[in-house]
Amino acid sequence: MPVSNARTTDVILKAAELIQEQGFEATTVNDISRATGLTKGGLYHYIKGKRDLLYQIMRFGMDQLRTQVVQPVQQIEDPEQQLRTLIRLHIELISQGKGALTTLSEEVQGLEPRHRRHILTQKREYFEFVRGMIERLQRARRVRADLNPSVAAFNILGMVLFFARWYREDGSLAPTAVADQAAELALSGLLKRPK
Amino acid sequence: MPVSNARTTDVILKAAELIQEQGFEATTVNDISRATGLTKGGLYHYIKGKRDLLYQIMRFGMDQLRTQVVQPVQQIEDPEQQLRTLIRLHIELISQGKGALTTLSEEVQGLEPRHRRHILTQKREYFEFVRGMIERLQRARRVRADLNPSVAAFNILGMVLFFARWYREDGSLAPTAVADQAAELALSGLLKRPK
Repeated sequence: MPVSNARTTDVILKAAELIQEQGFEATTVNDISRATGLTKGGLYHYIKGKRDLLYQIMRFGMDQLRTQVVQPVQQIEDPEQQLRTLIRLHIELISQGKGALTTLSEEVQGLEPRHRRHILTQKREYFEFVRGMIERLQRARRVRADLNPSVAAFNILGMVLFFARWYREDGSLAPTAVADQAAELALSGLLKRPK
Repeated sequence: MPVSNARTTDVILKAAELIQEQGFEATTVNDISRATGLTKGGLYHYIKGKRDLLYQIMRFGMDQLRTQVVQPVQQIEDPEQQLRTLIRLHIELISQGKGALTTLSEEVQGLEPRHRRHILTQKREYFEFVRGMIERLQRARRVRADLNPSVAAFNILGMVLFFARWYREDGSLAPTAVADQAAELALSGLLKRPK
């Protein structure tokens, strides 16, 4: 399925929201057909079945992460600025998809083994991208010497990914404000205090 | 079902691990019977069915959180020390249950509505317990004035809960070391730097 197609994107986002609300197993192809306004036949033009749909959703989410977070961050030199920008952009990306893509990205057990391996590899690469920035900060002695870069990377990703579970569009907080607060907490937590 | 019973605890923990591995929908009562070493009839002595089991698992997890995290933390006066201890104890609790209880606590959509409300209320109370500590630190001007206590509480819970998803018992990191690193990152991130 070509991910560049606007209709396809619409099907994926609507299906993701529905699955997030109802749960994957409880959502039928009929439900998805109704939510997307497509006939069942029309829907099968985009997806081969529910399991394939879940993979398409995750692939779409990982593609977005690459183009909207990883690639812009790779343009930045300074690792502190990289990390700050990554936290901001990732939280803003989650808010666009109403958290659905992120939450569903954890349902890897619902995938076929080869698809599961593909998604897990991409997640691992993202984790290593984040850890790499922290390692660079550590080599430059800008973070505590006893800091464990893996734990710190997981902690930061935990903060970011949890946003998908608690953020409500109708709440009082704008995603940019949340993103700024999270970036500030993480960076103040990581960086050495001036002597 | 009485949660104090050791056999019941064993059934709950084994079922939780199995469901985490296989997914809730994919796990049959037969699978659980095999994993717990009980006959199907014996199993129905402990649970009314799969949906009830999910509720029992979550209730058990929330009970553990209360007795092993909330109650000890309530004995502490200073909010900074409270928060530090809460992060440590919660991460250690997650490591005991191999993350299964925590991961499953997010499957609230699988519950009957009244059970779902009960679990969501308990989660809300825990969140407010954490936020309350941050608010006390803010009133004492020990955290930045522009800090949003709700966002900070969600960020800290995100760090803690994500531990359940990435921690592997056979990895090189002890849960206590992870807990110390997470507490340090969160507290350094929150507290004002000395002038």
